[in-house]
Amino acid sequence: MRYSRMLLPTLKESPSDAEVISQKLMIRAGMIRKVAAGVYNLLPMGLRAVRKVEAIVREEMNRAGAQEVLMPMVIPAELWQESGRWDEYGKELLRIKDRHNREFCLGPTHEEVITDMVRREVRSYRELPLNLYQIQTKFRDEIRPRFGLMRGREFLMKDAYSFHATIESLDAEYENMYRAYTRIFQRCGLDFRAVEAETGSIGGRFSHEFMVLAESGEDAIASCTSCSYAANVERAEIREPGIKAPAAELPIERVSTPGQKTIEEVSAFLKANPETLIKTLIYETDKGLVAALVRGDNQINEFKLRNAVGASFVRLAEEEAVRKATGAPVGFAGPVKLNIPIYADFNVRGMLDAITGANEADAHLLHVSVARDFRGVYADIRNAGSGDKCPRCEGSFEIKRGIEVGHIFKLGTKYSEAMGANFLDEEGREQVVIMGCYGIGIGRTAAASIEQNHDEAGIIWPKPLAPFDCEVLPVNVKDEETRKAAEALYEGLKKEMDVLLDDRDERAGVKFKDADLIGIPVRVTIGERNLKQGMVEIKERKTGEVRLVGLDGAIGEVKKLLQA
Amino acid sequence: MRYSRMLLPTLKESPSDAEVISQKLMIRAGMIRKVAAGVYNLLPMGLRAVRKVEAIVREEMNRAGAQEVLMPMVIPAELWQESGRWDEYGKELLRIKDRHNREFCLGPTHEEVITDMVRREVRSYRELPLNLYQIQTKFRDEIRPRFGLMRGREFLMKDAYSFHATIESLDAEYENMYRAYTRIFQRCGLDFRAVEAETGSIGGRFSHEFMVLAESGEDAIASCTSCSYAANVERAEIREPGIKAPAAELPIERVSTPGQKTIEEVSAFLKANPETLIKTLIYETDKGLVAALVRGDNQINEFKLRNAVGASFVRLAEEEAVRKATGAPVGFAGPVKLNIPIYADFNVRGMLDAITGANEADAHLLHVSVARDFRGVYADIRNAGSGDKCPRCEGSFEIKRGIEVGHIFKLGTKYSEAMGANFLDEEGREQVVIMGCYGIGIGRTAAASIEQNHDEAGIIWPKPLAPFDCEVLPVNVKDEETRKAAEALYEGLKKEMDVLLDDRDERAGVKFKDADLIGIPVRVTIGERNLKQGMVEIKERKTGEVRLVGLDGAIGEVKKLLQA
Repeated sequence: MRYSRMLLPTLKESPSDAEVISQKLMIRAGMIRKVAAGVYNLLPMGLRAVRKVEAIVREEMNRAGAQEVLMPMVIPAELWQESGRWDEYGKELLRIKDRHNREFCLGPTHEEVITDMVRREVRSYRELPLNLYQIQTKFRDEIRPRFGLMRGREFLMKDAYSFHATIESLDAEYENMYRAYTRIFQRCGLDFRAVEAETGSIGGRFSHEFMVLAESGEDAIASCTSCSYAANVERAEIREPGIKAPAAELPIERVSTPGQKTIEEVSAFLKANPETLIKTLIYETDKGLVAALVRGDNQINEFKLRNAVGASFVRLAEEEAVRKATGAPVGFAGPVKLNIPIYADFNVRGMLDAITGANEADAHLLHVSVARDFRGVYADIRNAGSGDKCPRCEGSFEIKRGIEVGHIFKLGTKYSEAMGANFLDEEGREQVVIMGCYGIGIGRTAAASIEQNHDEAGIIWPKPLAPFDCEVLPVNVKDEETRKAAEALYEGLKKEMDVLLDDRDERAGVKFKDADLIGIPVRVTIGERNLKQGMVEIKERKTGEVRLVGLDGAIGEVKKLLQA
Repeated sequence: MRYSRMLLPTLKESPSDAEVISQKLMIRAGMIRKVAAGVYNLLPMGLRAVRKVEAIVREEMNRAGAQEVLMPMVIPAELWQESGRWDEYGKELLRIKDRHNREFCLGPTHEEVITDMVRREVRSYRELPLNLYQIQTKFRDEIRPRFGLMRGREFLMKDAYSFHATIESLDAEYENMYRAYTRIFQRCGLDFRAVEAETGSIGGRFSHEFMVLAESGEDAIASCTSCSYAANVERAEIREPGIKAPAAELPIERVSTPGQKTIEEVSAFLKANPETLIKTLIYETDKGLVAALVRGDNQINEFKLRNAVGASFVRLAEEEAVRKATGAPVGFAGPVKLNIPIYADFNVRGMLDAITGANEADAHLLHVSVARDFRGVYADIRNAGSGDKCPRCEGSFEIKRGIEVGHIFKLGTKYSEAMGANFLDEEGREQVVIMGCYGIGIGRTAAASIEQNHDEAGIIWPKPLAPFDCEVLPVNVKDEETRKAAEALYEGLKKEMDVLLDDRDERAGVKFKDADLIGIPVRVTIGERNLKQGMVEIKERKTGEVRLVGLDGAIGEVKKLLQA
């Protein structure tokens, strides 16, 4: 492709409303343009990267034995009413009416449509298992779309759904998809982790998220430094730490802490390390009010708390309820002499000389000794953090940040049961089909690869996702020899790979800046002086390494670099 | 692909609501399933055919120098308000509101979005011309969706838009696209015609439709048997026929025709050939009432009539107006002694001994002589028919039926002017960008290829669009030798082409019927008796020709047939 003929509008500055690096760079590199909030045009450069992801995903899904189908974007309400999600799903489901006033929605996901397809076509266990996927545009009416392709409203997704006669068959396909996803993100050239995850609103009983690691990631991942265990910090199990050897206990002392409510305020005011504080939060649950205790430097995890309490919901208590339970305004609760059930995190057990609220306005207690001064139930109720113990081995966690690009679920029978997707088993008995589902955000993967791979100057494409493999950059296109050499090299490379020829009559500085910004893995620069010696310069975007090679050997050198 | 593992639900009977042959066969061959009126699932077999069309279209668009982009399906109302189409476009435009009550539509076409993209990015004549295309799902809320993929509401379309600094540049790109479209439909293996067409609601000043010829086609095409001229019958110009030599004239005679109003009724009642009748229709126009005359066997064309009258609208007059103008109820109008302007088709000039209405209830006139009995303006105001004279040469028309699969337009400045898409020309003056647009119905092309290529038994895929190139059909999979030979052949063929292996344990009759129905171009049948002689049977779906070949040479024979 010739740069001069391509719609490739690069920008010097990021638009003011761009928030994350991939969004800024995709706009600056002429890949995407906003049409409305969360709705984007993919320009030629953007579409090329997205199509690279798409092709890898399609190849690996086919290799794994899945069959490609295409379902509609506009879905009749009846199907969603059957599954119950028409009412359950929030405003992210964009509901519409056609000219005959019939209700439809724009598909944010396609469990209903595919379950309907399968219940109509599949009769017998002999037709199972079946894994059907599509690569298709979805719409989710996010309340606050942001981050460009990372969280758009209209977005390209690969969604696959598998159907099984037995749990064992689902387990095998889940493993199969786990391996396929691993191959996909390896082939994309990305650094990623498969982590255990919550299932969220799609339902089901077991799931893994595939996370591209990047400092800017929205999700925090606890991953063991010794074994392969990794999980979202919200989900990561934490092995109970050992209890420290008992030390001398001091009597409790009440101190005045006027207006000091938060951990930060109290630790600053008392000049104490947050690790020596116990945070006490009062929760309303369907089992009544409870107090939840975590160490001052830990974050409470409400999913885990709910499980520990055995409640069906937990939510932070209102001011009034807190006052009633503790006798103090919010910010001064503590476990000592508290008359509601106490659930304390493992990290709280064995704390000596701790600081807690005094259940009295503007006061805290010093020298609280957990074993001596109150009784509670101990459980894992916090988010995992760096140094926490791995539940699978003797190792401990490091915390990384990641961007979710894929998610696999064991769905079970949530949809097939609601919608009557049955089959006849070997004995001729009617059984409910068991399902799995498997998603990959296609555009999101392209964006995540930029979050992971960039520098000050711009994008550093992983080779498998680069819109072009190589860029040929003649410094001065007005020089006849330069132009001729560039054209010949361009034509030669084109036979072997995707090449961009920057044939623009622009200043060298502009062309170099644009080349770094769009981040093609290998650049061949043709300058007059080198050319006189029969040489061109090859630069690898990732390492910045530059070498001079003979014009004749340039194609071979480029290929070698791309295969490395 | 193994048939036993594929979601390929063939049906013996067509569903009762299927109307056209492609729809019936695509449903029976397990290619599509209806989700809602005009909204379909593409099953694996259907998607494979659609993707073949898509790949050819993409390759040829790229070869022609167009650049692929991807625009959103959900489009903000503001853009359509700018172009004026938000109000102009009828109910086919599905208007929706998001959670914040902002208005959007589902894109039935993308002139507004692309014009907005180009006005934001293109500044100078140096960045023109530009041809941008996408292959994307569209939605048109048809009042009566029908015919399966032929006229769906949600459908896959390739739409391209070109942008130019000069008319000459647009003309050149139009020619370029004309050639690209010709290559596309040739490569699809289809019999088609490029015909001159009306521009309809998209606007613009010049257009061609690409029509796949099929008896079931919705459109009638007049194509010259001597030259390359072809046009929709509604658009085809007709050369004025010579006037017959005058014959003896008889005096007008009034006959009673009680209740006989239509051409069919009158010609049956009077035992006269419709060619001897003159049909007189009264039209309201912005220039007042006019009478339009065509020969009894011709169809009036209101576009042409409007042009002949020089009116901005024409519509059939109401009963009351007809009665006032003619003194008779509808069905008895005639040109003799009529006091409103008369526009008569060229075919009416020179008619002698004609039959017309008498401008009196239940009566007609015989022996009307056009030159003698009334005065009118003569013009081409009818649809072209078989035998009509070509406007370009001495030849005459034959009428074929066709299915529109592609349409190219010279749009001009309709959108760029309304939306302010300007550029600076060489002299630095601001100019309006000139546009062209170019569409292909992807799913429609797959369906049209079936309308053109089928027989009683099922689909006969043109080789380039076939979901698989070859089907291997072991007659009895329980026979170990058969199974082994089939597997070996399948593996061998798979390296060279797309193969379907019918590995189902089904009766031979069922497998042969399914093979004919799904219509893969080449079938290799492996039967026990032939196999004992080391032979297999190769059958070409299109010709029905069968030949026995050695198992070892089978792959070569299949390849030879596919290349033929």
